[in-house]
Amino acid sequence: MNDVPAPGLRPLEGYFFEDYAVGRRFEHATPRTVTEGDAAAYIALTGARQPLHCAAPVARAMGYRACPIDDLLVFNIAFGKTVPDISYNAIANLGYADVRFLAPVFAGDTIACASEVIGVKANSNGKSGVVYVRSRATNQDGAEVLTWSRWVMVAARSAADPRITAIPELPPEVPVSKFGDFSRLTPHASRLATGSARCWDDYAPGDVIDHPGGMTLEESDHMSATRLYQNTARIHFDALLAKSNQFGKRLIYGGHVISVCRALSFDGLENAFAIAAIHGGTHANPTFAGDTLYCRHVVVSRDDLAGRKDVGALRLRMLGVKNVELRKLPPSAAGEKNPLVVLDLDYSVLVPKRKAP
Amino acid sequence: MNDVPAPGLRPLEGYFFEDYAVGRRFEHATPRTVTEGDAAAYIALTGARQPLHCAAPVARAMGYRACPIDDLLVFNIAFGKTVPDISYNAIANLGYADVRFLAPVFAGDTIACASEVIGVKANSNGKSGVVYVRSRATNQDGAEVLTWSRWVMVAARSAADPRITAIPELPPEVPVSKFGDFSRLTPHASRLATGSARCWDDYAPGDVIDHPGGMTLEESDHMSATRLYQNTARIHFDALLAKSNQFGKRLIYGGHVISVCRALSFDGLENAFAIAAIHGGTHANPTFAGDTLYCRHVVVSRDDLAGRKDVGALRLRMLGVKNVELRKLPPSAAGEKNPLVVLDLDYSVLVPKRKAP
Amino acid sequence: MNDVPAPGLRPLEGYFFEDYAVGRRFEHATPRTVTEGDAAAYIALTGARQPLHCAAPVARAMGYRACPIDDLLVFNIAFGKTVPDISYNAIANLGYADVRFLAPVFAGDTIACASEVIGVKANSNGKSGVVYVRSRATNQDGAEVLTWSRWVMVAARSAADPRITAIPELPPEVPVSKFGDFSRLTPHASRLATGSARCWDDYAPGDVIDHPGGMTLEESDHMSATRLYQNTARIHFDALLAKSNQFGKRLIYGGHVISVCRALSFDGLENAFAIAAIHGGTHANPTFAGDTLYCRHVVVSRDDLAGRKDVGALRLRMLGVKNVELRKLPPSAAGEKNPLVVLDLDYSVLVPKRKAP
Repeated sequence: MNDVPAPGLRPLEGYFFEDYAVGRRFEHATPRTVTEGDAAAYIALTGARQPLHCAAPVARAMGYRACPIDDLLVFNIAFGKTVPDISYNAIANLGYADVRFLAPVFAGDTIACASEVIGVKANSNGKSGVVYVRSRATNQDGAEVLTWSRWVMVAARSAADPRITAIPELPPEVPVSKFGDFSRLTPHASRLATGSARCWDDYAPGDVIDHPGGMTLEESDHMSATRLYQNTARIHFDALLAKSNQFGKRLIYGGHVISVCRALSFDGLENAFAIAAIHGGTHANPTFAGDTLYCRHVVVSRDDLAGRKDVGALRLRMLGVKNVELRKLPPSAAGEKNPLVVLDLDYSVLVPKRKAP
Repeated sequence: MNDVPAPGLRPLEGYFFEDYAVGRRFEHATPRTVTEGDAAAYIALTGARQPLHCAAPVARAMGYRACPIDDLLVFNIAFGKTVPDISYNAIANLGYADVRFLAPVFAGDTIACASEVIGVKANSNGKSGVVYVRSRATNQDGAEVLTWSRWVMVAARSAADPRITAIPELPPEVPVSKFGDFSRLTPHASRLATGSARCWDDYAPGDVIDHPGGMTLEESDHMSATRLYQNTARIHFDALLAKSNQFGKRLIYGGHVISVCRALSFDGLENAFAIAAIHGGTHANPTFAGDTLYCRHVVVSRDDLAGRKDVGALRLRMLGVKNVELRKLPPSAAGEKNPLVVLDLDYSVLVPKRKAP
Repeated sequence: MNDVPAPGLRPLEGYFFEDYAVGRRFEHATPRTVTEGDAAAYIALTGARQPLHCAAPVARAMGYRACPIDDLLVFNIAFGKTVPDISYNAIANLGYADVRFLAPVFAGDTIACASEVIGVKANSNGKSGVVYVRSRATNQDGAEVLTWSRWVMVAARSAADPRITAIPELPPEVPVSKFGDFSRLTPHASRLATGSARCWDDYAPGDVIDHPGGMTLEESDHMSATRLYQNTARIHFDALLAKSNQFGKRLIYGGHVISVCRALSFDGLENAFAIAAIHGGTHANPTFAGDTLYCRHVVVSRDDLAGRKDVGALRLRMLGVKNVELRKLPPSAAGEKNPLVVLDLDYSVLVPKRKAP
């Protein structure tokens, strides 16, 4: 069998740093029709409880024709599509930027995904480099449902030329004006169904929310989730291979950590019914089976949406923390410096505003 | 963020004994549209095999328009809805009574749930008390599909007033006349599909059925099931928190134990196609990951349904037993006294009668 | 309860060698309506990525009316139906022959299964014997979707008469002329969706493909899969019972091993979109939780399908290997002799041919 990398013939061992050049495009394999079955599996794996995604009458009362698929299930499936071409030989997922949730996905929709290399930077040791890509997921009608940038450290096949440097400019945030079209949305039905009266007006910048739940992660759970996303990165599945990495064991896919934190945050952010954008974020430390995850949110800002008195955006910092009670976590802890902080995400959600009296 | 308990604002840490007063009502959050995906996940988690719930032609031949959702999946989802308001701070689930399965639920139906406090009793130490609630699950048309009473021991926020005592009268059984409407049911198709000729007439009071299967429970399995039910009780998920409980580890949600026992009992109760009522029951001992479950049934009585010669009810005692071969379990063991008995349930199923010659 | 084996009354402990006579037929219990939920659960459990089975537009472009259910999900569900009657007391699954995938199964179809005993052979020690059965799975219209032969070693109830010997003739292969009807198939859409240009013409007899992925198996995963298939063989579920077997632990159901190997083989066999037949195969060694599976394929032959220039068959040898990097596996290893080889399957897949220039 012809196994030499060639145009249209992805090498079995995946691509290495040398294979990426700015402007190279990938049409990722295996489009995916998302189903009610995926939605159910996602609930079983994460405990997600947003009524918008699991109660059809609520979704219809909010202006949707059916339950849209959970934003992060869409994100993780779309992300999974990119893995064989972009991060199969990734050493680390370094960060996200400019992640836009542009249109709802419904059961029966088919997601396809493509990426373009927008930056490369060899590491000085020549053994690896950073690859920046812009990815877009589209539905069966060609409409964009999700676009995002991410950068990963990728192993070099032999030696990466350290002179290779083309770092892209990435926006520090997704401005509210670039959010998806929520014009047909009637958000208040959500509040009736979440059991919480907390609305946009009840949160203020600086508020800290320590969500009470915790979730201990098991090998089966994170592998099942990552398989559901058809993400093939070997580090999540192959314990024998993992013995030779720096940790000696399988790593949990970071997108699953985001999903679990989002599910845990329902208690306290009950009416944050949709993710509009992820401005940036890092998986600050690895997560392993046996770790127990907790989630803290810090309110960054309250933002108005043009022309909307019934719904606003909350910009939030999501901290995923492991193996420590949140009340024992120093409030000033910036993600990067604390080995117990595994996730530090800057993102915006939509929340109903209090109705005018 | 306003986190002080207030009307319409569930406290993040849940309710405590002092928050419950007879007559207080809760409209539970997050209604749930049950789907074919949930049904598949349930099979994967329990091994359930009743053809009524997984073979559409059988269901139609029995008079249903489609496969109804497994009775216990409905029960566990409905139960899960009540947890944030009723048992988030429960120390123990003490018992069930008057559980009525009133109407079938089909894929696409949406379950909502409400509860009313019907009794409270402070414990003499003041640290906790017993809360009795009556809960009802309705579908999108407002029809009752399941109603039940349960009582739980709930921690007190500070000190429970030991003078508080209002113990409700709970019926010792659900009389056959209060069973749901099975008038359109044509049960015999079930027998063709289960591979068993055993019918109502073949069971007699006192019969003991030791079901041959056993199921070893894993952390991932019970957590996935409990997440599928959107049950948020922390004791099932948070291993770090659980270290400080009396067992030092996560407890398995009792409803999952019932589901596994029901699935194991297919071999021997093949034609017990529907649960009509649970008269009472207790989780006699806790179950943990690593335990292996077995199930014994004892036939309590055979009951006629008014006007039906083709189907009858069997009242059964379900014993869930762990880590011991059933043949080594003393036949006289009453649930409460044997640490190996984890479940003792008094309930009624429907079984086809032998056709008149 | 009447628990003596009788016509129409399967014994609770299953059948033993003495119960099988050539010509005895079993209509297996619990037909199964396969759903999108099952398909999602299967992806979560195996990581399967064939776009034919998860991308509806691809399936339609290939001539199907919807995504057909994964061939091996159909196989495992059908196989599971036979377990209570055929292999409940099996000591070992010895082999498969003449497995034909005859028609696609779609979500909503209901699979029923029947078997006939085609051979028996008592072992000389009298404690067990080999039972050969021919099984057929049909859909709700009575059309055959899958037929297969297998033979299993079954325990004897008391003492098997060593004179009992009736060994059937089993065909060494399924000839291409006996493959299912693929006449309406337009295979090239598959190549557009798999991200690989590899086609039938790119493989040659003797080619060895070491698929790069590996999958560590967990107890929850294999039990969930086996429950999804409603396979009730106790050896997969009951750790307490398993303590007394020769390995002292639960064995993983062999069909799950095939499914995982098939999923791993996507990278390298991207366009092998359908399994047409399994000519033969053995589970050469047992697999346990904690094992890491890898998959090697060896190309046996390229076969033409009558009248088709656009699609051909590849006959392949699938080797499932555990706990060793494939590059360290001697290339000459025949399955039976190497304790690290757990699966050795001889089967045929369909692959698009290169388009004429």
